[in-house]
Amino acid sequence: MTATSIGDLQTPCLLLCSDRLDRNVARLRDSVERRGAVYRPHLKTAKSIDVTRRALRSPADPVTVSTLKEAETFLEAGLTDMIYAVGIAAAKIGRVRALRARGVDLAVLVDSVEQARTLADAPHLNEDAIPAFIEIDCDGHRSGVDPTHRDLLVRIAAELTNGAGLRGVLTHCGSSYSARDAADLEAWARRERDAVLLAAAHLRKAGFDVPIVSLGSTPTALAEIDLEGVTEVRAGVGMFFDLVQSGVGVCSPEDIAISVLTTVIGKQHGCAIVDAGWMAMSRDRGTAAQPLDWKYGLVCDERGRAIEDLLLLDANQEHGIVGMREGSGCEMPVLDIGARLRVLPNHACATAAQHDCYHVVSGSSPTVHERWDRFGGW
Amino acid sequence: MTATSIGDLQTPCLLLCSDRLDRNVARLRDSVERRGAVYRPHLKTAKSIDVTRRALRSPADPVTVSTLKEAETFLEAGLTDMIYAVGIAAAKIGRVRALRARGVDLAVLVDSVEQARTLADAPHLNEDAIPAFIEIDCDGHRSGVDPTHRDLLVRIAAELTNGAGLRGVLTHCGSSYSARDAADLEAWARRERDAVLLAAAHLRKAGFDVPIVSLGSTPTALAEIDLEGVTEVRAGVGMFFDLVQSGVGVCSPEDIAISVLTTVIGKQHGCAIVDAGWMAMSRDRGTAAQPLDWKYGLVCDERGRAIEDLLLLDANQEHGIVGMREGSGCEMPVLDIGARLRVLPNHACATAAQHDCYHVVSGSSPTVHERWDRFGGW
Repeated sequence: MTATSIGDLQTPCLLLCSDRLDRNVARLRDSVERRGAVYRPHLKTAKSIDVTRRALRSPADPVTVSTLKEAETFLEAGLTDMIYAVGIAAAKIGRVRALRARGVDLAVLVDSVEQARTLADAPHLNEDAIPAFIEIDCDGHRSGVDPTHRDLLVRIAAELTNGAGLRGVLTHCGSSYSARDAADLEAWARRERDAVLLAAAHLRKAGFDVPIVSLGSTPTALAEIDLEGVTEVRAGVGMFFDLVQSGVGVCSPEDIAISVLTTVIGKQHGCAIVDAGWMAMSRDRGTAAQPLDWKYGLVCDERGRAIEDLLLLDANQEHGIVGMREGSGCEMPVLDIGARLRVLPNHACATAAQHDCYHVVSGSSPTVHERWDRFGGW
Repeated sequence: MTATSIGDLQTPCLLLCSDRLDRNVARLRDSVERRGAVYRPHLKTAKSIDVTRRALRSPADPVTVSTLKEAETFLEAGLTDMIYAVGIAAAKIGRVRALRARGVDLAVLVDSVEQARTLADAPHLNEDAIPAFIEIDCDGHRSGVDPTHRDLLVRIAAELTNGAGLRGVLTHCGSSYSARDAADLEAWARRERDAVLLAAAHLRKAGFDVPIVSLGSTPTALAEIDLEGVTEVRAGVGMFFDLVQSGVGVCSPEDIAISVLTTVIGKQHGCAIVDAGWMAMSRDRGTAAQPLDWKYGLVCDERGRAIEDLLLLDANQEHGIVGMREGSGCEMPVLDIGARLRVLPNHACATAAQHDCYHVVSGSSPTVHERWDRFGGW
């Protein structure tokens, strides 16, 4: 595609800074590999073949997906080593088998005897057994088996080895998003690690082979604790980062790789009205629960330089209200109708999901180098 | 498309009850027409040619759009009478002119002399003048001219008649969503009506022709106040309704036409884990600000019958947590892994935007009659 300029884009639209993406991916990969584990990026944030190509060294690299649609789409791009990291339901096994028949080493998640039995009972195509992870609950956050429940772990593993195969144990510390400082974050990271190691130990003691011990969330992946015994680390949003991750302390706003480009369409009550509402930003207000609330986002100039205390204060479907943070000592900049701004999001996964492509930029250059498609759905 | 059954759908996905849609549209149209005005539905909620065909009597009917992408898509379906109800920016005038050149009577919004001048100055294709509405601020909610600012109204109108044409005045009472009872709602409806009538009177007294006097929001459209002097009423979400509108008091949960179909994929801490997270529901939590908070939605059985006090309590990207409302006297129903549920949304516009189609059902029948595409983007 012909390079174009940011000034030629119709707004609102999604920008992706490729230099920040590269830096973020390298940081995650280095942090994980330095500690002897494998980096298995979660592709749920990007949902883009182009971003994935940029984030992997080879299509043979392992990845994580959150939907079977992701697995089907990334197979088209040649990826073959995937974990579908959402508990499996019987109605989805047909698509899992079809993916495996097309050459994807796709593993699934279970956290109950019932689900393990469903996998074992499902009609076998060419005797193919679907490998499964036992999901471990490390923080009471969502799903998974309590790792102290040795008997349940063993019963699930026994059920799996009847039909499918036990691939390993897997956990995700969603609670790490509530961390407020480095000590807090390390505590969550240790809890995540210790939970999955305990589950692996129980299973091995009972005679089961546990080849993969998988953990991850972006905050804990960057916590730099010792990972002995852990074979792989998953992380998604860390490719892009966002204001929530900045609040957790694992990045700064200058690391955030995606932003929404918007145009000033009015002025009112000392604020500017822009054409990025919640349809462009999503309704995600993750920073509302953090000490520093960024409302619907931090506003930058057209080149991506943050403007101190300038926020997307509120959002309707196609309108956003840009103004100063309450109590700010800074003066509201002059924003003429037609001016262009960029808004850094609360939550990259949610904001990116509102768009069908990334307009790829680099540094503070006004040139748009490429257009990378993204997809949604299930 | 061959009729299929709800049981055959992959989850999560979006269901649309066509009987509820028909009933909701008829109610809005009747309420507006009975009071002598024209019903101009806002298509931003549905974003679907099929839904629009069902909601209009003829493609010649007037509609409202929130993006130029909507205008371009609905032109393909033969619609020609449209208002783009978001303040115009210079960078969008090219697409507006292209739409008008293709036969759409597309009008735009301005609320400043600056914008009116932009329209007047923009290069004229075949001498086509873009008709514009002056947006009126009736509630301090967002954009628009204060209707008591007579001089500003007149200056904008004068600027418009230089190049484009003054089509009328338009207002939207977004604050009506905060209504908690019928008296409250009527007060907002009167305020919306009186603001736009005052602006029209100022302009007429100054010698301007004001052919259209347009107002609307779903709550005020249903407030049944006298509409003398108002020529048309716009409403969007009222086609589908949602839990926020139920909290405002203009519908009941039984009127809500869309729901997200989901599958139970786990059990944990007395709750069920389902495969509808915020990616399927959106992050919209509009009812959090209302007296009755429905969390991420009201859960119904597979046939659409609401289960008292059963809520989607929380949501991650692809996981939802279903459990009882805190303090409920009802018992949590048994929800086996693989069971199917429907979830009624907080905000229909936001939830529908997470999906690429509607699976059309009717009443409590398990048959899926049709698949109607929807679109997003700008």
